[in-house]
Amino acid sequence: MFREKIKVLDCTIRDGGLINNHNFDLRFVRAVYKALSEAGVDYMEIGYKNSDKLFSPKEYGRWKFCSEDDIKQVIEGIESKTKLSVMVDVDRVDYESVPKRKDSLVSMVRTAAYVKDIDKAIFLANHFADKGYETAVNIMAISQALDLELTEALTQLEKECKANVIYLVDSNGALYQESTEFLVKKAKSIIKTKEIGIHAHNNQQLAFSNTIEAIIHDANFVDATVYGLGRAAGNCPLELLLGFLKNPKFDIRPVLDLISKEFIPLREKMEWGYIIPHAITGILDQHPRAAIALRNSDKKENYREFYESLTGQNEE
Amino acid sequence: MFREKIKVLDCTIRDGGLINNHNFDLRFVRAVYKALSEAGVDYMEIGYKNSDKLFSPKEYGRWKFCSEDDIKQVIEGIESKTKLSVMVDVDRVDYESVPKRKDSLVSMVRTAAYVKDIDKAIFLANHFADKGYETAVNIMAISQALDLELTEALTQLEKECKANVIYLVDSNGALYQESTEFLVKKAKSIIKTKEIGIHAHNNQQLAFSNTIEAIIHDANFVDATVYGLGRAAGNCPLELLLGFLKNPKFDIRPVLDLISKEFIPLREKMEWGYIIPHAITGILDQHPRAAIALRNSDKKENYREFYESLTGQNEE
Repeated sequence: MFREKIKVLDCTIRDGGLINNHNFDLRFVRAVYKALSEAGVDYMEIGYKNSDKLFSPKEYGRWKFCSEDDIKQVIEGIESKTKLSVMVDVDRVDYESVPKRKDSLVSMVRTAAYVKDIDKAIFLANHFADKGYETAVNIMAISQALDLELTEALTQLEKECKANVIYLVDSNGALYQESTEFLVKKAKSIIKTKEIGIHAHNNQQLAFSNTIEAIIHDANFVDATVYGLGRAAGNCPLELLLGFLKNPKFDIRPVLDLISKEFIPLREKMEWGYIIPHAITGILDQHPRAAIALRNSDKKENYREFYESLTGQNEE
Repeated sequence: MFREKIKVLDCTIRDGGLINNHNFDLRFVRAVYKALSEAGVDYMEIGYKNSDKLFSPKEYGRWKFCSEDDIKQVIEGIESKTKLSVMVDVDRVDYESVPKRKDSLVSMVRTAAYVKDIDKAIFLANHFADKGYETAVNIMAISQALDLELTEALTQLEKECKANVIYLVDSNGALYQESTEFLVKKAKSIIKTKEIGIHAHNNQQLAFSNTIEAIIHDANFVDATVYGLGRAAGNCPLELLLGFLKNPKFDIRPVLDLISKEFIPLREKMEWGYIIPHAITGILDQHPRAAIALRNSDKKENYREFYESLTGQNEE
């Protein structure tokens, strides 16, 4: 599948940071940046641009704030054509404090929002577009959006928003290829002046195939993470995506090396991937929080009881 | 996706036996049979019917031979509507020694063969059909079959073979949903009097989505294994498949329990699943043997070197 317009955005550090409060050390982040640069990946999302008035830098690592200084330490001395991206959450960013594009090492700002917050997302995306950034709006929990409200949100985004890309985010890992096809086609039918993106979660081992499905139906921005690292079940594995895309600009080998050297040892210390409680919340189209709580308890392997508690089968 | 004609065949013990020379102990096989029976799974494939003249029972466990006596010990005392299946390989079965259906606990015999051996497969399938069994032919390495030869094989199967089901087997774990769609549609266009089945491997985390894709295009026999157990990358996880199929006859909970109690401990002792060398052979559409050999060597995590050796990138 060689389509030149397809852009791969790696969000390993940003989404993976949700597991460890954004505490990846500098050496690790540099190793990821170097490998992605050598692999020819288009964008690397390095973290969140959250306000340090709302979150304490004592509690959270630096990739929750992504100061220009910290970013500089990541990229210094590494040859790269990979652009940098940061994510902002509605109500969690001090947007006035973000510098203009020309004074920043960041190329793209992505705003994450639920359908209900689409007005706030449009405001933020327009703000960052006016500052000179490439911009995206990531519509979260797309599997739970009411069709009517999603139609309205997409229509507003098309008319009022300067964002270059509108992402569909399967936060619950609940989509199958038929629902992915439906949603991408729906978005394409309304969004005519921007690209469509896909961000899939891997609860049901469908993140990669849903990403392929979105590509087939003309989504051109695709998210992935190295070895699928990401909160709970994780994301579409970058190595599989690069193996599928036949664009000769990509080289899978630096990513394979990175997995050998950094991610196999990391997996011993940090949990993500195909884990039954995460599969269960995906099957039931629920937020991952219940499964994450279970995995942090002493009942982490009690799958049947967990399933019954979520479906009410253990109630009187 | 509720379609009454869909039959689920669990091949955990048969495909998983390829990892441990078919040495699962009786207690474990009974636990699997009990859970599948409670879950309402249609078929359980318990092993191979290989000739003990060709393979030594000292070297291989009992599920390589599946004597009626051993099968009886599995099912004794367990209430069940789950039918039993065994697999035979061309040239490895002493077919004359297999009893008639009426004298056996087995309901179905599946013959596995490459396209080149299709005449032998037809002979065997017809032999077992004449003995009263439900029968299937599993066409292996479907991703490597030449289109012309596959057309011929399917045409012969339709005309000359008494098998009830023709399975497409993605031995290399190389199919994507587009190639799965192409092959299932092709098979359906030639095979008019039998069902089509799918047996997917999970090298690229696509076994489940390719199984869904095959179902969408009217394959009615689908293979899966508990927690994806199977040689190398393993198979379509049964728990995900049951979560997708909305047929009320299935109950996912006994399978969840089985995974908690038996498969989480087993995974500590036996390797299968998403492992980069298996992903690489899937991406490159190669037989899993090179990756299996690598995983048994001291270079098991040298992914880049392995990739380069398979693609010739390390040659002069």
